[in-house]
Amino acid sequence: MPRYKLLIEYDGTPFIGWQLQERGLSVQGALMAAAQAFCGEPVKVQGAGRTDTGVHALGQVAHVDLAKDWPTDTVRDALTARLRPHPVAVLAAEKVPDSFDARFSARQRHYLYRIVDRRSDLALERGRAWRRPRRLDEAAMAAAAQVLVGRHDFTTFRNVECQAKSPVKTLDRLDVVRTGEEVRIMACARSFLHSQVRSMVGALVFVGEGRWSADDLAAARDARDRSACATVAPPEGLYLVQVDY
Amino acid sequence: MPRYKLLIEYDGTPFIGWQLQERGLSVQGALMAAAQAFCGEPVKVQGAGRTDTGVHALGQVAHVDLAKDWPTDTVRDALTARLRPHPVAVLAAEKVPDSFDARFSARQRHYLYRIVDRRSDLALERGRAWRRPRRLDEAAMAAAAQVLVGRHDFTTFRNVECQAKSPVKTLDRLDVVRTGEEVRIMACARSFLHSQVRSMVGALVFVGEGRWSADDLAAARDARDRSACATVAPPEGLYLVQVDY
Repeated sequence: MPRYKLLIEYDGTPFIGWQLQERGLSVQGALMAAAQAFCGEPVKVQGAGRTDTGVHALGQVAHVDLAKDWPTDTVRDALTARLRPHPVAVLAAEKVPDSFDARFSARQRHYLYRIVDRRSDLALERGRAWRRPRRLDEAAMAAAAQVLVGRHDFTTFRNVECQAKSPVKTLDRLDVVRTGEEVRIMACARSFLHSQVRSMVGALVFVGEGRWSADDLAAARDARDRSACATVAPPEGLYLVQVDY
Repeated sequence: MPRYKLLIEYDGTPFIGWQLQERGLSVQGALMAAAQAFCGEPVKVQGAGRTDTGVHALGQVAHVDLAKDWPTDTVRDALTARLRPHPVAVLAAEKVPDSFDARFSARQRHYLYRIVDRRSDLALERGRAWRRPRRLDEAAMAAAAQVLVGRHDFTTFRNVECQAKSPVKTLDRLDVVRTGEEVRIMACARSFLHSQVRSMVGALVFVGEGRWSADDLAAARDARDRSACATVAPPEGLYLVQVDY
């Protein structure tokens, strides 16, 4: 059973998220259906990150074991063709050793959060970014973000449904940059808690709007209490960009 | 009757194009309905460029005469609110003299065409760019594009339904640049013939795929014959970016 590593792009809008569930259309379910249609038998697809409802991916990674030794380009094209009309595409397939596990072998996960701060509704970027009507102070956000970088107890920034054993994580990068009317937040870590990126983004927007100082953000972090969290940013601005192995 | 200049963004996907028609949802019609809902009486909205079905705008311009002297921010917000849920937003409103005409006062129109050259389907950029499965030679495209710049008879690159009096136009710029897997074509002119940008893009893609040389492109131009045209690029990659006055 050769193992393949898949690089996957999707528009999260129509999905209940990555993970297969009893009801609703999941990205994992769509991929498993495509793989089954291709191979003629049930195939398990294991992803690197369980993105939530409405969250997008530019570079989700999954692994899959196929009964036959197909050329990698065939796997990529056959799965992509069978994923239509769902907005999911396999960008690349690669043969990997059986020891490769999309989830457990991951060394680093990179997320992007896109905010557009403008008065008018989003027409072209609707469902692709979070609109904030007031201008954000991206320099204040970039500076404050550094209080979250490093090894911390992220209980404040953790969804109550999170199943991780420990709330302690090491955040390697949390960068904030502006391009025109768009503020982009890049977060990198080996792994994240459930809703951690969106919770951190919500807190940074409080800073960008002048409602919180960097000290307030540090205090929220130190509270280790979910109720100390600011707004949780909506899913449509979040992208799983890259997973490193 | 104060005149307002409106800066408008839209996702062209659900529309039959800019222009009001007897049947179907047009951007102009959506704007006129929003203006009528705001003012309580029929209002004419005149645009700078009549974009086709499926063509997007980042910066369409229109003018509108309102019976009352509203603050410009009120006009912007009231129209945007009444355009929901259509993917159209008024980004800015500005008072202009009665001599201002969105269509006839325009000095320069800027269009962008987005091509993604990759093997796999577009998931996130579906309906936002034209996918070409083979790698394009953007340097050859950029060089060949220069044979279309300047004052020419563009009959070859003109839709047969075009109503312009003359097929002679001056193309001021036709630039081709690559960013990653995206090839962007920027076209600037005082005015364009119907389907001119999409016809030129189709011809440049022939060049990028090695099917045409720059000489072939010049010969197509000189043929002044619609049947000498290459593929016409589909509407979803085209954006009206800016109109200068």
